[in-house]
Amino acid sequence: MTNRDTASFRAATLDQPLALDSGRALAGVEIAYETYGTLNAARDNAVLVFHALTGDQFVASTHPVTGKPGWWERMVGPGRPIDTERYHVICANVLGSCMGSTGPASMAADGQRHAMRFPVITVRDMVRAQVALLDHLGIGVLHAVVGGSMGGMQALCFAANWPQRTARVLAVATTARHSAQNIAFHEVGRQAIMADPAWNGGDYYGGASPDKGLSVARMAAHITYLSEAGLTEKFGRRLQARGDGQPGAKSFGFDADFQVESYLRHQGISFTDRFDANSYLYITRAMDYFDLAEEAGGRLADAFAAAGNTRFCLVSFDTDWLYTTADMREVVHALNAVAAPVSFVELSAPYGHDSFLLDVPALDRVVRGFIG
Amino acid sequence: MTNRDTASFRAATLDQPLALDSGRALAGVEIAYETYGTLNAARDNAVLVFHALTGDQFVASTHPVTGKPGWWERMVGPGRPIDTERYHVICANVLGSCMGSTGPASMAADGQRHAMRFPVITVRDMVRAQVALLDHLGIGVLHAVVGGSMGGMQALCFAANWPQRTARVLAVATTARHSAQNIAFHEVGRQAIMADPAWNGGDYYGGASPDKGLSVARMAAHITYLSEAGLTEKFGRRLQARGDGQPGAKSFGFDADFQVESYLRHQGISFTDRFDANSYLYITRAMDYFDLAEEAGGRLADAFAAAGNTRFCLVSFDTDWLYTTADMREVVHALNAVAAPVSFVELSAPYGHDSFLLDVPALDRVVRGFIG
Repeated sequence: MTNRDTASFRAATLDQPLALDSGRALAGVEIAYETYGTLNAARDNAVLVFHALTGDQFVASTHPVTGKPGWWERMVGPGRPIDTERYHVICANVLGSCMGSTGPASMAADGQRHAMRFPVITVRDMVRAQVALLDHLGIGVLHAVVGGSMGGMQALCFAANWPQRTARVLAVATTARHSAQNIAFHEVGRQAIMADPAWNGGDYYGGASPDKGLSVARMAAHITYLSEAGLTEKFGRRLQARGDGQPGAKSFGFDADFQVESYLRHQGISFTDRFDANSYLYITRAMDYFDLAEEAGGRLADAFAAAGNTRFCLVSFDTDWLYTTADMREVVHALNAVAAPVSFVELSAPYGHDSFLLDVPALDRVVRGFIG
Repeated sequence: MTNRDTASFRAATLDQPLALDSGRALAGVEIAYETYGTLNAARDNAVLVFHALTGDQFVASTHPVTGKPGWWERMVGPGRPIDTERYHVICANVLGSCMGSTGPASMAADGQRHAMRFPVITVRDMVRAQVALLDHLGIGVLHAVVGGSMGGMQALCFAANWPQRTARVLAVATTARHSAQNIAFHEVGRQAIMADPAWNGGDYYGGASPDKGLSVARMAAHITYLSEAGLTEKFGRRLQARGDGQPGAKSFGFDADFQVESYLRHQGISFTDRFDANSYLYITRAMDYFDLAEEAGGRLADAFAAAGNTRFCLVSFDTDWLYTTADMREVVHALNAVAAPVSFVELSAPYGHDSFLLDVPALDRVVRGFIG
């Protein structure tokens, strides 16, 4: 928390209170964002990139807390598939997150943290805040909206609700609806956080954070981001090397004997350095609530009724068992029903859901071709 | 814990110390077991049924703690596929568990609970203890060994190590090796337990148990027992009915809005009434260590080198993503390599891994046909 709290983020304060799907409204919303490349005189070369559950606005620049490269530098930058020499790329931290945008860790009007007083938000609320950011920035119609995973949900949500604000929609490794299994995994994570006594009903700011619970939540989620085959290829049943440099052996104890155990523990622990547990609760809840068809009265095609002139590109990965090709085909069928121009491709990649972030040259080609 | 502690279980005390794979030995091991049907004069009609991770010896009789029917009453009983009018069925609580067999919650020689001083055990150790039980009971060669999930691991382990002690091996919904993904899910569960302050390094007996951690562990595991399609059919995105009898609505809070959330929470909480958290650590560890090929020097067929005259029946389920048909095929190929008589069937059932416990008439027929 400390690093995040002391980092300064570029942010816009929305002029108007943000009306939320819950019926509540949030005043003084701040949306932190980064931009790359130059907005042209016609103001029509902007690309809005949406981030995933635990992502942030640092899509193509160094993360100020971890010091790591931007999370999609392979895709966004000079000469990259989303070419910042041609496009003005905007990426905002979602509402409810913890990298400078208003969320449960932000100060409320009473000078105390929102914590669990923060309203439950939806994916549409996240997108609504970003549309307000576009208004603030004076950008009317985007060249494209782009996102993977929860970023893809935002892209589809944008298309459903603000189709006149973008010419193109690129959604990767995502779904129009969180399934029972998706909800179940998220619920495990939330229960792990709330089971941690340090969570303290969400009032832990200034004290010890529920790092153990958040770490377990991250571990459980992380398994869903990888394919079974990918885990086998990367780790199999290989044992950890011991401190003395000898090959690993079973300890007949509860240390991390297997490399996959050590990897998961590291994923869990390092996550707590950069993410707020309450934000994890709120954002997973928003994802679980996500169901574009339901918002449209039950029929997915109706969600896209006004998007018939928007160009769509949808991408799934054959080893992604979190948001599957079958999920994506439902979106394709809905778009076909409204005669929207849509291209769909299932790419073969061994990494499971995380493929959208990793070295999949075929994805680079698809994105470059679509963004143009 | 209270109910379990005060229940009295039928148990045998092993005469000899049990030599463990870790190199340690356990003296005074008690193995709790139940029997059904009558052992014939030739003592050759016994069937040993192995239970799964959280199972117990009450395969066909009421569970003394929960009051629920035996866990496999559809399969074991008079006139059932494993017919207790013909066979003498034995089912023992595995070493390391908590229903009367020696485990971490048992008293050590010093009058204190073993807790984490209990030695780390393997699936082979569990089977070794049950072979000692057979010796104790004066049963030489079994008509069959039978098990699903971890019970199937024990059946395969029995075949690999004591093939002369059984005529038949029936293994359902299981694997010869825990995969990286299998290990990963178990590690999440263990970390959830150990993250609970009430776990207290395993020394919680007589005080508050780490129920919250154990509950999260059970929730995570439970997802892996069900298929995505089964979860969708059973729960989908249906909301919980509210107390006033009105149809459910989103609460825009963190209560269990979705039925699948409520179901998982119930699974987690009710589990803590009947299971010991330390036992969960030890048994999952044993499963993660399980790799029959490794025990045989790396080649699975070598594990079955002495089992060429044993009859095998292997069953997988098409929706089981925990232990898949592909896992089972590896066992089939290994048995083919040693020319063991083996029949293998993949059954179609919607319930995922849990199919072996549920209403799948085709499984009943396969079991009845094989047991004879």
